[in-house]
Amino acid sequence: MTRYATLAAILSQRIQQGLYPAGHRLPSVRTLSQEHGVSISTVQQAYRLLEEQRLVEARPKSGYFVHTQRAQAELPAMTAPVQRPVDISQWEQVLELVRSRPHEGLIQLGRGMPDIAEPTMKPLIVALRNAARHGDLRSLYYDSIQGVAALREQVARLLLDSGCQIGPDQLLITTGCQEAISAGLRAVCQPGDIVAVDSPCFHGTMQTLKGLGIKALEIPTDPLTGVSLAALEMALEQWPVKAILLTPNCNNPLGYIMPDAHKQRLLTLAQRHDAAIIEDDVYGDIAYHYPRPRTIKSFDEDGRVLLCSSFSKTLAPGLRVGWIAPGRYLERVLHMKFIGSGATATQPQLAIAEFIRSGHYLQHLRRMRARYQQNRDRMTDLILKYFPAGTRVSRPRGGFMLWIELDEAFDTLRLNRHLEPQGVQIAVGSIFSAAGKYRNCLRINYAPKLTAEIEQAVQRVGATIQRLMPSSVLQPQTD
Amino acid sequence: MTRYATLAAILSQRIQQGLYPAGHRLPSVRTLSQEHGVSISTVQQAYRLLEEQRLVEARPKSGYFVHTQRAQAELPAMTAPVQRPVDISQWEQVLELVRSRPHEGLIQLGRGMPDIAEPTMKPLIVALRNAARHGDLRSLYYDSIQGVAALREQVARLLLDSGCQIGPDQLLITTGCQEAISAGLRAVCQPGDIVAVDSPCFHGTMQTLKGLGIKALEIPTDPLTGVSLAALEMALEQWPVKAILLTPNCNNPLGYIMPDAHKQRLLTLAQRHDAAIIEDDVYGDIAYHYPRPRTIKSFDEDGRVLLCSSFSKTLAPGLRVGWIAPGRYLERVLHMKFIGSGATATQPQLAIAEFIRSGHYLQHLRRMRARYQQNRDRMTDLILKYFPAGTRVSRPRGGFMLWIELDEAFDTLRLNRHLEPQGVQIAVGSIFSAAGKYRNCLRINYAPKLTAEIEQAVQRVGATIQRLMPSSVLQPQTD
Repeated sequence: MTRYATLAAILSQRIQQGLYPAGHRLPSVRTLSQEHGVSISTVQQAYRLLEEQRLVEARPKSGYFVHTQRAQAELPAMTAPVQRPVDISQWEQVLELVRSRPHEGLIQLGRGMPDIAEPTMKPLIVALRNAARHGDLRSLYYDSIQGVAALREQVARLLLDSGCQIGPDQLLITTGCQEAISAGLRAVCQPGDIVAVDSPCFHGTMQTLKGLGIKALEIPTDPLTGVSLAALEMALEQWPVKAILLTPNCNNPLGYIMPDAHKQRLLTLAQRHDAAIIEDDVYGDIAYHYPRPRTIKSFDEDGRVLLCSSFSKTLAPGLRVGWIAPGRYLERVLHMKFIGSGATATQPQLAIAEFIRSGHYLQHLRRMRARYQQNRDRMTDLILKYFPAGTRVSRPRGGFMLWIELDEAFDTLRLNRHLEPQGVQIAVGSIFSAAGKYRNCLRINYAPKLTAEIEQAVQRVGATIQRLMPSSVLQPQTD
Repeated sequence: MTRYATLAAILSQRIQQGLYPAGHRLPSVRTLSQEHGVSISTVQQAYRLLEEQRLVEARPKSGYFVHTQRAQAELPAMTAPVQRPVDISQWEQVLELVRSRPHEGLIQLGRGMPDIAEPTMKPLIVALRNAARHGDLRSLYYDSIQGVAALREQVARLLLDSGCQIGPDQLLITTGCQEAISAGLRAVCQPGDIVAVDSPCFHGTMQTLKGLGIKALEIPTDPLTGVSLAALEMALEQWPVKAILLTPNCNNPLGYIMPDAHKQRLLTLAQRHDAAIIEDDVYGDIAYHYPRPRTIKSFDEDGRVLLCSSFSKTLAPGLRVGWIAPGRYLERVLHMKFIGSGATATQPQLAIAEFIRSGHYLQHLRRMRARYQQNRDRMTDLILKYFPAGTRVSRPRGGFMLWIELDEAFDTLRLNRHLEPQGVQIAVGSIFSAAGKYRNCLRINYAPKLTAEIEQAVQRVGATIQRLMPSSVLQPQTD
């Protein structure tokens, strides 16, 4: 990390911990320069970064101040899913979402696409081209079923940032995080088994459980700290839970980061009840603060955590490159990967390895973190502006998704039907629950550049909600 | 097809049907030119092609003659596997085979790698590079879960050659044929179900059954015509078989092409017993004759055949692009694909679509067909030369694998142990059986250019076999 980024991270942490409250004047450039033994221009760069992140505002001739508290929507409530193991439904709506291709005239606010148009992606395109060089046929062969060694080495290096010391031999490259989770589940569970999940839970994961004939036990989840450990403990005592599957960092769809103390307690619970933990960390690298949050895996001592991730959210989904650190289940996961899709395509592995090795990956992450954080604030503002009063909105600490809770009587499936002819698509809440809960919720992606076109789309969603809202609950927008 | 290739195909067929027996003089260039209304140089080109395929030999000043019968090894016997449903074992040896990466100083005679070094592959490399062009971000996005439309259109066009009329909407692009088969099996079967398979059967398929908890019912198989229909019928009457999984065209490892009449009868049997058919056609495009053989799918009327294939054997395995035409199981296979690995990587799909569209694929196939047929003959000669007398060898009609049967008492697992320090690897026969039969067999790949180095490797395998052969059965090489 550069000096200015380090300094910015320190200041950011202090602001977020409340040491410098909103509106408070921050130390002068000169003071910081002396305190931290860095140049004036380094401090200026750090402040500029914090300005970009909207944590700090410069007031002419007065210095730097903590950004005045922005209007915040109310948070969604602690979730209350059905607390018994259930078979998963909802395939039709998921199919509708994933079957749709990007095309002109459709604004896909519902899909989990990162922004891939930033210039920091350019070296990856070059690396992809280079990996398909004349005369170099490596990219056309199968490599090892475990994945290209050069990429596993780079992933092992990246994992240090989340507190994990995992050798390249303990890693398997997969065809996206989807394959990592799918192979992990198949390695640990049999059809009919019960898996505890955070709730709402990513629809792809839900469908994987469905496809494997596994029952989901949804655990109430707090929108700021994640799964309720008390509820999880009760569930573990009541049911023979084989595995706990969750996304503790930059959760999809809620955006929270589970506190480290919770992660440790969760691991202890899993040990006590001998359950495996399948940890989806696919958004972990785009937490808004640096260094990035630790994984549950980083506390794991007996190899019961299967850490799953990919480059689909940090780089590009069309590459289909992910990985898994399956702990004690390595051999069995390898078997499941072999029978599922065989080796993963070689060329993108070579290209990504080179992209990381040459420092471009971390550079890209820095940019995307700042970009997504800005977009979060702007999209939240748009929701506050266009959606009915009383709308509850998540406060993501990473990733690029907002979870929006409307009045309990509202039906977002119906909303989507009305949006379709308007060329807008959202993700309906019900696909994030095994039993079709969260019908009054929706997920919105704020990864792309928030153009006037996207603002119009959000406005249309808001207007359609207002129109469809049962008249008894509709209050005039006061804001 | 060009004129000379058409003419060559006609002559080749007549030779193979015995109309022109071995050693027989063929019509003169002038005669053929007049008969077929083509130029002298077209006929000469046709004869040159047939010479390359070793079907014809030119004798100076006498004209062209049917190639004198070459020494042929005895065929392997009709197989006699355990004929009750069994759980599959053998994972450790498969793992050993697939985990090994290509590296200097190791000759992998055991793996299913095509030759990717031919110049007809060049346009594909160009297409791969073009698919990763600056400013064109399509290749980085997810495309539809069903696969890139342009590629599905090209695959639909190719399928006409095997007698199939299947629309692009009825196709799913997969991450290799492995995913096609795996998703197909999961769409049709539950754990504990029974699937009938040809025997020997590709080890990847075997391991898929194992991983899914499905029992394999191995059906005796003829090395020239495929699965015994009588035995299959008995099995279907005796057991509740959910699906029949087989590779009727250019079978791996035996190389046979099942006669069309057998394909039709097999389909009738499946209808009568309401079993699905999972047809692995991954080598079908590299049958040595043109037009290529029909698929069982081409006779299918009620959508019970799931046709699986890929570009891993015809182009390159590292691309990881395959497809499935799942008939009536489309929706369920789509679900299984979604949960297994999500969408397939976009860039190689775009590149392959362009490669086929511009005619390069068929051109490449023509070249590879001729190359592999030549190599088959040369590799057979090497086996006859270096292996003990009494060695039985398959007579593949497509693909690039030889199946070799040694004395019953011989153990190829032990052979591989002895070959390892010599830098040679073969595929042991036991991984092609659920119950570890065929310990006295091995599979050898003859795709690559048969260099002196490869000849030496085959010689080393032969010598090691001679050395390990129980003395009671070892006869001096008479050839």
